[in-house]
Amino acid sequence: MNTYLVIMAGGSGTRFWPKSTAKRPKQLLSFGSGKTLLAETLSRFDGVVPAGNRVIVTTRALADATKKEVGPGVEVLAEPAGRNTAPCVYWACRWVAERDPEAVVMVMPADHHMASVKDFRSTLEMARDWAAKHGDLVTLGIKPSRPETGYGYLKVGASQGGACRKVDAFVEKPDLARAKEYLSSGDYLWNGGMFLWRASTALKAFDELMPEMKHEWDSAKGDVEKAYPRMTPTSIDYGVMEKARNVVTFPLDCGWDDLGSWTSLETAPLPGVNRTEAGVLAGGELFAVESSGCVVDAPGRVVALVGAKDLIIVEHEGVLMVASKDRAQDVKKVLEKVKASRPDRV
Amino acid sequence: MNTYLVIMAGGSGTRFWPKSTAKRPKQLLSFGSGKTLLAETLSRFDGVVPAGNRVIVTTRALADATKKEVGPGVEVLAEPAGRNTAPCVYWACRWVAERDPEAVVMVMPADHHMASVKDFRSTLEMARDWAAKHGDLVTLGIKPSRPETGYGYLKVGASQGGACRKVDAFVEKPDLARAKEYLSSGDYLWNGGMFLWRASTALKAFDELMPEMKHEWDSAKGDVEKAYPRMTPTSIDYGVMEKARNVVTFPLDCGWDDLGSWTSLETAPLPGVNRTEAGVLAGGELFAVESSGCVVDAPGRVVALVGAKDLIIVEHEGVLMVASKDRAQDVKKVLEKVKASRPDRV
Repeated sequence: MNTYLVIMAGGSGTRFWPKSTAKRPKQLLSFGSGKTLLAETLSRFDGVVPAGNRVIVTTRALADATKKEVGPGVEVLAEPAGRNTAPCVYWACRWVAERDPEAVVMVMPADHHMASVKDFRSTLEMARDWAAKHGDLVTLGIKPSRPETGYGYLKVGASQGGACRKVDAFVEKPDLARAKEYLSSGDYLWNGGMFLWRASTALKAFDELMPEMKHEWDSAKGDVEKAYPRMTPTSIDYGVMEKARNVVTFPLDCGWDDLGSWTSLETAPLPGVNRTEAGVLAGGELFAVESSGCVVDAPGRVVALVGAKDLIIVEHEGVLMVASKDRAQDVKKVLEKVKASRPDRV
Repeated sequence: MNTYLVIMAGGSGTRFWPKSTAKRPKQLLSFGSGKTLLAETLSRFDGVVPAGNRVIVTTRALADATKKEVGPGVEVLAEPAGRNTAPCVYWACRWVAERDPEAVVMVMPADHHMASVKDFRSTLEMARDWAAKHGDLVTLGIKPSRPETGYGYLKVGASQGGACRKVDAFVEKPDLARAKEYLSSGDYLWNGGMFLWRASTALKAFDELMPEMKHEWDSAKGDVEKAYPRMTPTSIDYGVMEKARNVVTFPLDCGWDDLGSWTSLETAPLPGVNRTEAGVLAGGELFAVESSGCVVDAPGRVVALVGAKDLIIVEHEGVLMVASKDRAQDVKKVLEKVKASRPDRV
């Protein structure tokens, strides 16, 4: 069985600002002494997907930085315009199908964390084998560990044999009461945006559910420059997964974390991020007096804290951010303010 | 009447760390677009003390930086060893007496703030004239504006004519209850460490109250290198002012602030320090979301705050400090920690 890895790496990653910027989004970041998240993602597939069968889809603006990061041998597809995930996945699947339509394509985000690569691979391989054998659209659903209101969920149905379950529905981000129900019911998984399917299976689903995409692509004779601007921005979830009938899932339990904000550094045990009495330290030399619960990343800096509690403290390239931890989701608000007068700094 | 200005500028000023360091103590700092505190202090005497009659006493380690700051024409006396304020004042008064023993010497700290230079000068000139005429030890006592427990006080007694009052006692830092009594009684002033006297008057007091100083000085034949190490570290308050009988004071009401910690930037209206919704900004470009009560100094940096409340945020030369404002007095604690492993940064 032939396999291909497709990594979606076009995200802007504003949530780790000021460390992440338009020119250096989350997937190109490293924390502490660790590798970049993109390099970490690639290495998760060593021994699973051949080195020559790896494709990264990114934006044109990030193509050079991405190529530099992954080195030669990895194909980088640069989108001429952002059109959300469906056109991106479609392009990658066509690209694979031209080489081997029956190969299993693994579509993966570039910037998530898996605490146990071993557990990840074990589920991945089951999903791969299922996708190769059954011609289903397979997604990895993450076993929820808390009543999270920030993610979409998969409602799972009948067992399909082994760990495989039918996906009955894609569910929007719930409120807290509903999230608690989901957690206790055991019938819901987090939608982690990880897909496995034969290239031919995916293209069949696209043709059926998003026929205009094939139309635009064919009428542009495969010329990405022409085809892309005409496509309607659509997510793969909305365009395909929510409507297809042959969607199954394998529950994933490997210490997954989407690294959605600075506070993720507290829960995801990233290599190179150290725990101290004052909090987690991703970069810098920390000295603290009566401080706790902080998240600090200031490479090359001496950081001194006095009575600092539950703060995010980040410095990168001339930008210093101090945020209350319970406002981690609002980093974007101050970023927008900075952008208005200092676009070079975001 | 001839006058001389003596500025005591040997302080280490750890309270403004990391902006202040051993090599750049408080008197050599500037805030925002303002002048250094030392330059500000000097300029307060323009038109009052002739340019050629100015003396700065500092440590040997700071002599070069001090000379560079004040330029030629100002005499810089460099102490070979720190011996507290009495030997420093004694040396300066001898230095003046060699030139004009009947000149009035104004002994001033280098790093305090006066909101109204006009009001300061008006009191200063009264004190100067009194010192010239009466041969008293004159001190400027600051009218208290709050029940401060961090300063020593002067207990004032009988009026001597005009605004002049006898000083009955020098009082140690009080507890809060006592500080409240002092404030409401109207008979107490803050001891601001500002003195005016004829050089001959001061030397007479020293000879009477600290005779060993004259002894060491004379036996070293005025050789500072020899005399200094033999002197006992003593403050001018303890060594002279508390014991002398001819001490009078002129109450000073000019928006004085000793700039004792980062939070002083909130009360002392230093030129170049701006007030914003998020707090006071001494350096840097500030962008804030739902933040208030902060004190920020990070020249050349973009500073982004999200939900930051009552924090001191300072960055200077690779050192970033974040302190809870109610812990401003504890900056020294973290400085000591940094000093232990990074002596170059304090």
